[in-house]
Amino acid sequence: MYCFGVDLGGTFIKFGLFDIEGNLIEKWDTPTVKETFFDDIAKNVLDKMSEKDIKKDDVKGVGVGVPGPVDGEGIVNGLVNLGLVGQVNIKNILEEKLGGIKCIVGNDANVAAMGEMLEGGGKGYTDMVMITLGTGVGGGVIIGGKMLSGVTGGAGEIGHFPVNVDEQATCGCGKRGCLEQYASATGIVRVAKERAMKIKMPTKILEMEELTAKDVFDLAKEGDMVAIDAVEIAARYLGIATAAIACTVNNKAFVVGGGVSRAGDFLLDKVKKYFNEYVFKPCSDVEFKLATLGNDAGIYGGAALVIKE
Amino acid sequence: MYCFGVDLGGTFIKFGLFDIEGNLIEKWDTPTVKETFFDDIAKNVLDKMSEKDIKKDDVKGVGVGVPGPVDGEGIVNGLVNLGLVGQVNIKNILEEKLGGIKCIVGNDANVAAMGEMLEGGGKGYTDMVMITLGTGVGGGVIIGGKMLSGVTGGAGEIGHFPVNVDEQATCGCGKRGCLEQYASATGIVRVAKERAMKIKMPTKILEMEELTAKDVFDLAKEGDMVAIDAVEIAARYLGIATAAIACTVNNKAFVVGGGVSRAGDFLLDKVKKYFNEYVFKPCSDVEFKLATLGNDAGIYGGAALVIKE
Repeated sequence: MYCFGVDLGGTFIKFGLFDIEGNLIEKWDTPTVKETFFDDIAKNVLDKMSEKDIKKDDVKGVGVGVPGPVDGEGIVNGLVNLGLVGQVNIKNILEEKLGGIKCIVGNDANVAAMGEMLEGGGKGYTDMVMITLGTGVGGGVIIGGKMLSGVTGGAGEIGHFPVNVDEQATCGCGKRGCLEQYASATGIVRVAKERAMKIKMPTKILEMEELTAKDVFDLAKEGDMVAIDAVEIAARYLGIATAAIACTVNNKAFVVGGGVSRAGDFLLDKVKKYFNEYVFKPCSDVEFKLATLGNDAGIYGGAALVIKE
Repeated sequence: MYCFGVDLGGTFIKFGLFDIEGNLIEKWDTPTVKETFFDDIAKNVLDKMSEKDIKKDDVKGVGVGVPGPVDGEGIVNGLVNLGLVGQVNIKNILEEKLGGIKCIVGNDANVAAMGEMLEGGGKGYTDMVMITLGTGVGGGVIIGGKMLSGVTGGAGEIGHFPVNVDEQATCGCGKRGCLEQYASATGIVRVAKERAMKIKMPTKILEMEELTAKDVFDLAKEGDMVAIDAVEIAARYLGIATAAIACTVNNKAFVVGGGVSRAGDFLLDKVKKYFNEYVFKPCSDVEFKLATLGNDAGIYGGAALVIKE
């Protein structure tokens, strides 16, 4: 028995062929073409089946992550990056193009969380929350081994957790004081620059030509006080958000992924410190883990949607 | 077919006999005796079955709410108010005493949420979060019609949501800045008194002999600026917490209960105002409802555990 994991991104569509235990047999990708991506997904899956002589009855399903909120029925309300507008039932469209092979569709961040549970940093946990610290901050909530989509596909939108209502700068979402404004790669750079202007301390932050989040972490590790300050701010707001999430869903693990998580235990230890400061004791029995699958989390997650259904 | 809902409180054990559609047939209570409450629960259920000539096969189950965290297996780690210490499997104990009738056990606040979903303010919603504003602040999370317990029974512990890390006063839990410190009956009184001392404005707050949360709301409705301030602070922190919960689990409704909720729409409208200010748009399609079952929410919730299983 086999399954496919598909990660529909703005630039590439990634595919993985898996056995039903979650072992990756083969992975490949194809550029995303706005006009034809539904057909391209179906064609890639069906062609791979022909190539490997896999019959339809031997495919348990195809799990697909897409860049936008998806409800429990597989319906999206547009996919901005892919030029899709209005209510579209992605599950139905793909199942038809795949000749009736079952499809399960989820938001890409939620699906990535399922991938990390299947074979990544969250392996062995059935109740976990993934936090992806990239250009933005995304997330996924898994309860009892199942992905939580929420009533409008908005579950796990942890980047827009209100953590600082006194903030004056506006988030991309239009609000002020979202977690993403401090803990995303962009946010860490923004805070570091702001602090550098404000704090009268020697710092290399303002000397960098194109400051990145990695630069901020590297400088912090070298002892640059302004960089340390920016990292502490990110960790503190992550501590508040994770403490709040833990007393809402009482999960067993947080899995931290995305580019910013390359800072590793240097970041994770600080987040844990603040988490322990803010968390309600009966909800504090939580592990903090680093994600391990990187860009493959999406295809593993697609497979997990099928396997864990 | 019948079921029983049992609400094990520190002073009384409340019982409800329900038909399988959730209609209450009869309710009664008995004082809680620390030494015998397990036997008392079983005796009350079995006696009622004899009285009504209900056979064991006609009872689908007994749902029980207890005052402490309960994991998914029906195990508590002590019940402080009832003198119970250590790990106790309440489900197993009661099932044995009931001659094998199925028991489902949950935390009382979580179970009350199930009750409000079955026949109260949350009727018709399968994805809702209840917030109980009483002496403390409790809560319950319901996803897809099922009660969320969490890995250590701590799901829905919304009272200890960290909403203000700059707070200097300590919460009953030992932390600082928990929602309960502002939005519980106790919290509203505390904040009102503090503000009265700080704000140089005419107020009746300091003239009241034994100030209650109801007094604060009454004064706020009359235009007392200090009382209004305290209510706005409670509503603002409730707005932050509900916005954060909505972007985590993306629920369809918040049901607000407990003594403080008697302030009705006067409170709810303010909470909604702040919620809308802080919530992430894709997670904002949420209704705010008042709980309607009062002290009966627990027995209805016990029945709901059995009916919705």
